Amino acid sequence: MYETTTQENLPIGIFDSGVGGLTVLHALKNLLPAENLLYLGDTARLPYGTKSHDSVTRYALQAADYLVQRGIKLLVVACNTASALALESLREHLAPLPVIGVVEPGAIAAVECSKSQHLLVLATEATTSQLAYTRAILRLNPDAVIEEMPCSLFVALAEEGWHQGPVADVVAEQYLGLIRERSADLRPDTAILGCTHFPLLQGPIAQALGPDIKIVDSATTTAQAVQEELVRLSLLTDADGGGDLQLIATDGPERFARVGSAFLGEKFAAEDIKLIDIHPTDLAVSG
Amino acid sequence: MYETTTQENLPIGIFDSGVGGLTVLHALKNLLPAENLLYLGDTARLPYGTKSHDSVTRYALQAADYLVQRGIKLLVVACNTASALALESLREHLAPLPVIGVVEPGAIAAVECSKSQHLLVLATEATTSQLAYTRAILRLNPDAVIEEMPCSLFVALAEEGWHQGPVADVVAEQYLGLIRERSADLRPDTAILGCTHFPLLQGPIAQALGPDIKIVDSATTTAQAVQEELVRLSLLTDADGGGDLQLIATDGPERFARVGSAFLGEKFAAEDIKLIDIHPTDLAVSG
Repeated sequence: MYETTTQENLPIGIFDSGVGGLTVLHALKNLLPAENLLYLGDTARLPYGTKSHDSVTRYALQAADYLVQRGIKLLVVACNTASALALESLREHLAPLPVIGVVEPGAIAAVECSKSQHLLVLATEATTSQLAYTRAILRLNPDAVIEEMPCSLFVALAEEGWHQGPVADVVAEQYLGLIRERSADLRPDTAILGCTHFPLLQGPIAQALGPDIKIVDSATTTAQAVQEELVRLSLLTDADGGGDLQLIATDGPERFARVGSAFLGEKFAAEDIKLIDIHPTDLAVSG
Repeated sequence: MYETTTQENLPIGIFDSGVGGLTVLHALKNLLPAENLLYLGDTARLPYGTKSHDSVTRYALQAADYLVQRGIKLLVVACNTASALALESLREHLAPLPVIGVVEPGAIAAVECSKSQHLLVLATEATTSQLAYTRAILRLNPDAVIEEMPCSLFVALAEEGWHQGPVADVVAEQYLGLIRERSADLRPDTAILGCTHFPLLQGPIAQALGPDIKIVDSATTTAQAVQEELVRLSLLTDADGGGDLQLIATDGPERFARVGSAFLGEKFAAEDIKLIDIHPTDLAVSG
């Protein structure tokens, strides 16, 4: 194959179930401003967080195939659910392309932040059911104490644009109030936001957890992991100046632009988003 | 084709994006206990309520095709979003099979209930964006005044099992409190629950709307419309005794059983649900 672009100057591919991964994209833009970035949000099939292992894996492989066909030098799985359920399948399927998820960087951030090594993981039901954070943290510190709590409704709040206000406060209190009220020795000292939607709700979450529990998310540490991997493979772009950013969605560019602007931290319009389609063509009885 | 079952004894097919349509199934079981019922919840791709017209139509046609292949005598589109966006496409595609949606029966129920003919429609964003209820109501009464309000978060609350309690109360208040506080002449007197998830939240919704606004849903009137259509076509079953009920989902039977039992009003287990799969096989750039 004759390439007009050298491999270093191919974009970094970023994949998420929707707009949540834009928080990771934002961190990548800040840390690696010269890199080209190609973001795919699988908005036609979101949310992944309440779906089964098989469905999430199949959706993730399809999205990754699309980005690989477009040409990328590294894949970031910016969705916690897909990282928790499908990372090994993606790595096998795409080898030797480097694939970086958000779970391990999040686990590193939490272990580095925590004094007591009693950690709380807030994530979707699909992510917590896999105990992916627990396993990643135990690889870093076999003595850590980890609690995982599913908080699926935070996703709907972020999607509705209700990141703050009375509803966000009450939902956060309902999930987390009892943890704040524990005695200090039974309380975790660090909470991981194990879903890319959750950083938008950091205010209400911090209030419900109280002042003694620190909050970490994986966006910044994931960007650092990408940088390290690109350095290791000598794949950093040699271009100067700002890289290109292309946004792709599988459904609803208007909604993607409206909700996504809050995640990315800058305004963009529906016209900035390329729409692609995943056509299911057959319906087979599998069980 | 040699049929071992007469057409009258084929099941009624019921299709929804998930478990919400079980409220319609429940009404059908009560009104037509001898009928066989075949229910398909497209849980792999829920929610439909935040997706585009094209995606909802494609998903609905696929689900309908599956039920038709299994053999049904009538299709109930128990999902408001699919009824609002895809009913005409379904009728064209499946003719001469009778297809009944939930929007028109809901509109009839509301117009019959309302004195002032000032009506409020509570639904998902996809449904309200189509103004399907407004158009159905105006066909019944061209002088009616209709307000449509998207309340997407009610879906997530019902799916989380938080139908009552402080979170449901605050969410309902956030959406509906300002309507209650209007002067009587500016207030609708009837609210339509234009999403099959919403009957589960009837308590908090009624509280937020106040005592002067009556609430109607389309489950009962849809069952009546099905009965009338079967009588008209001489397709009522000739069997005595209780009909069979078969539940099918495209993902997550455990979650389907857990959440769905509240909608159906009776307990069932994951083992009671047949799992089918929709395999998307190609990924095409469409725009």
